[in-house]
Amino acid sequence: MQREKDIKFMKEALRLAEKGRGTTSPNPMVGAVVVKGNRIVGRGYHKRAGSPHAEVIALEDAGTKAKGATLYVTLEPCIHYGRTPPCVPRIVSSGIKRVVIAMIDPNPVVKGRGVEMLKKAGIEVIIGIGEEKARELNEFYIKYITRKIPFVILKWAMSLDGKIATFTGDSRWISGEESRKFVHSLRKDVDAVLVGIGTVKKDDPLLTVRLVPSEKQPLRVIIDPQLEISPQSRLLKEEGGKVVIFTLSGVDKEKVSFLQDKGAEVIEMEGERIRIKKLLEVLGKMEVTSLLVEGGEKVFTSFLEEGCVDKVYAIVSPLLLGGKDSPTPFGGKGFEKIKDGLRLKKLEWLRKGEDMIISGYIEVKCLQE
Amino acid sequence: MQREKDIKFMKEALRLAEKGRGTTSPNPMVGAVVVKGNRIVGRGYHKRAGSPHAEVIALEDAGTKAKGATLYVTLEPCIHYGRTPPCVPRIVSSGIKRVVIAMIDPNPVVKGRGVEMLKKAGIEVIIGIGEEKARELNEFYIKYITRKIPFVILKWAMSLDGKIATFTGDSRWISGEESRKFVHSLRKDVDAVLVGIGTVKKDDPLLTVRLVPSEKQPLRVIIDPQLEISPQSRLLKEEGGKVVIFTLSGVDKEKVSFLQDKGAEVIEMEGERIRIKKLLEVLGKMEVTSLLVEGGEKVFTSFLEEGCVDKVYAIVSPLLLGGKDSPTPFGGKGFEKIKDGLRLKKLEWLRKGEDMIISGYIEVKCLQE
Repeated sequence: MQREKDIKFMKEALRLAEKGRGTTSPNPMVGAVVVKGNRIVGRGYHKRAGSPHAEVIALEDAGTKAKGATLYVTLEPCIHYGRTPPCVPRIVSSGIKRVVIAMIDPNPVVKGRGVEMLKKAGIEVIIGIGEEKARELNEFYIKYITRKIPFVILKWAMSLDGKIATFTGDSRWISGEESRKFVHSLRKDVDAVLVGIGTVKKDDPLLTVRLVPSEKQPLRVIIDPQLEISPQSRLLKEEGGKVVIFTLSGVDKEKVSFLQDKGAEVIEMEGERIRIKKLLEVLGKMEVTSLLVEGGEKVFTSFLEEGCVDKVYAIVSPLLLGGKDSPTPFGGKGFEKIKDGLRLKKLEWLRKGEDMIISGYIEVKCLQE
Repeated sequence: MQREKDIKFMKEALRLAEKGRGTTSPNPMVGAVVVKGNRIVGRGYHKRAGSPHAEVIALEDAGTKAKGATLYVTLEPCIHYGRTPPCVPRIVSSGIKRVVIAMIDPNPVVKGRGVEMLKKAGIEVIIGIGEEKARELNEFYIKYITRKIPFVILKWAMSLDGKIATFTGDSRWISGEESRKFVHSLRKDVDAVLVGIGTVKKDDPLLTVRLVPSEKQPLRVIIDPQLEISPQSRLLKEEGGKVVIFTLSGVDKEKVSFLQDKGAEVIEMEGERIRIKKLLEVLGKMEVTSLLVEGGEKVFTSFLEEGCVDKVYAIVSPLLLGGKDSPTPFGGKGFEKIKDGLRLKKLEWLRKGEDMIISGYIEVKCLQE
């Protein structure tokens, strides 16, 4: 009985948390409800970094009714001063007598200490109600806070014979309009979007969120080892998220200055080629918690070969293109045997118009060197 | 009212016709019901070439009740002596007063003449009820009877990055068990299965129906220009449908004799390479109405380049293989622009375990030369 009630109220807290999608980074999405008897007396969710935490908003919403009530919160309450004061003391002083938590905060500065402090204050604490959903909700945050690098999503649109472009590089449009809208909703939810210089040259993309409403635009990251980007690129001329260009050290200083004047950030990397792991570390330091990689084949292959992929979305369109030289999602050497191939987990299938979007997770860690 | 009744009874006739799937070739599947008042008084379907036609079975089932009744039949009744006597005279003599037909028989020796003869006998004739379904049901027959070549289905299993094998040629198993069962049900329904010699060498396949029950085994067709097939091939040693090998003229006579002794048919084609169109003409003459092409890349590409594909089934498995040199379904030159690509029609999506099977039709004619 109690467990069923807990599951029900945690669902509401998770629903509230979801409202913060796309705006809380680098913070997690968190939702909270205060329940007295069988009634919700307070609701809250975290909107953006710097604004109050979900628990605090829910407690304020509940006012004096919080006394003796149960607090449901999708993530362990914090104990540290960050952009806002810690939540645990606020919970204790409100007179809450029971706290139900979906998951422990994997942030090393919290990680169970919030629970400990609540218990010390004589509050009953239940952990793990709705945990699976809560972990899914904050998959970006969990990766970022534990590994200091963003959660990486690869997305491609391919023909039914596995091509992401024709042999001439034409790729507009393999997928249908509904799928493209879906891609914009993915862009809306991440902190950054990345493509290689090949894609910039071929498609001259904007990499902005346009087909769905969005409060913010993702960072636009370009891998451009030789700093070949054209000054005429739409990326540099039209509005959108900040442009960040990864290049190799020793490129033309004048071009770097020119790009900086255009508002781009140019990051010069040491070595003979740009290592994806290093790039992700730099993005992590910039508080990029999630990265959507949109191509092309070379870039996808580098991410896969370095084991830096968390999730993929393959948009499969009912079209045949053919071509020995037409690019596929991944080149490189490839796996020798089928049994060595990367099997995706937690699959989902989504019809969008005539396209089928297949998504899943890869259980390969991006190993630190 | 009458129309609704007609649709309802035609549905039953179509359901009966479906029972002949996989066994009627080179004849069409046909179903028939005799209706008196609002009651079905006779049912029939065509089981196999040489056995009675659906109309005749239904009329026999109805007996004297056929007098004054309506006959529903999924295909225009025949007027010619084939393996059995013509149906129209039998219908007329039974006293049927109204005939509802789903579709005109595209067979040039019938093609409306059955209808004409029924009308001349004073029978009311309605055409086109359930036509779309009827055409789907007999897509193999329609292609074969009008073009004298088989209906061609291409089937491949590919990874989510578009590979049908690894760079070493390993392809077992990209797809899951449920998909493989589905492939066997496709084999069961066609007259012949085809692969290239490359696939025979790599996989040593049996090309039989094993994972689902079947009354017959399809012909096993191999494209083997240099007659490289190993005498040890399981195809030659184990039971299954007859083996038909297409090779170029001028190959080793002794090997031809050896293969013939093993029960294989060896067909020597003139020219420098085996033309798919010619091959289909030969198969048509052998009364092969449907052909399932199972690979590999070279064979698929030849069929596509010669415009000889009617339908495709792509089994998409949630697996990443990579590899610049890993084969994809189609190589060759490919299309230059996305807008030139072959868009599939009448799409269907079917989940089988963790695989997604996407099927559709290609509207390209196999042009006669």
